[in-house]
Amino acid sequence: MNFSSKLLENAVNEMSQLPGIGKRTALRLVLHLLKQSKDQTKYLVTALQSFRNDIKLCKNCHNISDIELCEICANPNRNNEIICVVEDIRDVMAIENTAQFKGLYHVLGGKISPIEGIGPHNLTIDSLVKKVKEGKIKELIFALSSTMEGDTTNFYIYRQLQDFDVNLTTIARGISVGDELEYTDEITLGRSIINRVPFENSLKN
Amino acid sequence: MNFSSKLLENAVNEMSQLPGIGKRTALRLVLHLLKQSKDQTKYLVTALQSFRNDIKLCKNCHNISDIELCEICANPNRNNEIICVVEDIRDVMAIENTAQFKGLYHVLGGKISPIEGIGPHNLTIDSLVKKVKEGKIKELIFALSSTMEGDTTNFYIYRQLQDFDVNLTTIARGISVGDELEYTDEITLGRSIINRVPFENSLKN
Repeated sequence: MNFSSKLLENAVNEMSQLPGIGKRTALRLVLHLLKQSKDQTKYLVTALQSFRNDIKLCKNCHNISDIELCEICANPNRNNEIICVVEDIRDVMAIENTAQFKGLYHVLGGKISPIEGIGPHNLTIDSLVKKVKEGKIKELIFALSSTMEGDTTNFYIYRQLQDFDVNLTTIARGISVGDELEYTDEITLGRSIINRVPFENSLKN
Repeated sequence: MNFSSKLLENAVNEMSQLPGIGKRTALRLVLHLLKQSKDQTKYLVTALQSFRNDIKLCKNCHNISDIELCEICANPNRNNEIICVVEDIRDVMAIENTAQFKGLYHVLGGKISPIEGIGPHNLTIDSLVKKVKEGKIKELIFALSSTMEGDTTNFYIYRQLQDFDVNLTTIARGISVGDELEYTDEITLGRSIINRVPFENSLKN
């Protein structure tokens, strides 16, 4: 692109570093700022800057948080004997929205992925193992996405914890509510037959 | 969405003010900042802030520019007797990329659109009329998009300038190069028949 302005070019280049934002989209976004007051841009810039500089990771679950111990970990009404292992904060938000889980979380910060150069030591697995070794955890629910990387990560953690007295479970895989059977992929359908549940369970929700 | 962090919520809310960015996309973009160094966020924030605060409008053509007179207006090799009237800087960039136009531009800053509350006085029409009245302009090329608003704006300017000694033209409407005739809409096809050009013209490009 042939920019006549260095300031515009800089802003577009920086904006297009964000994932999924190409140069054209970046240009549209940046030019939009001109239609608004300078204050509006200042709010945006301040919000991004203070988010990046001041955000903390909860010292217990590694979820992002404004304070040292996140709201969930600090809540005395939550069951601290059950821990749900997730990849990042978006998964925490998704599960919280279901209002079906009253335990705590453990945010790994990613999945083991040799291709992307992410090994076990880039994740918070050590701190999870340490928590389990302390003996207070009764159940660990794996809620990683069902991909090669997710399964690898599950298995890696399983190997570290299999000798401890902790119940390891994984969230159910199956056909989504409302989905047509004939359009479901074979692996999901196959797993949902193997892991069939008593009919009474389906009456509870 | 149920954010556990006020800093995150603020950043997502501000980001989702941008056009075409919903809350989910904003969350993805904002969380991406955490994967990068603090410096990277600082570059983004600084680029946006200085773009918004320091950008100027060229005093001649109203294009956005780092200095008082934009590069195009300041270029002595360009023909200042032909002016191409466009909506915004993206149109200037698109026409510049064709390398087919050696005149100057006049950026209106939008189109007349009663629905969006944009009247003639929100645009730079007065300054265009003033330029023409000075008598140095020989040709004015309308290059607004071919919509109701674009046509209205063209016509409004035409009414102001019809009594002056200036050649008013509009960019050709017709079938895009490479397009199939049968899939072209009727209005475009109809106009392209009415405004047919000598066959020799098509041999030039």
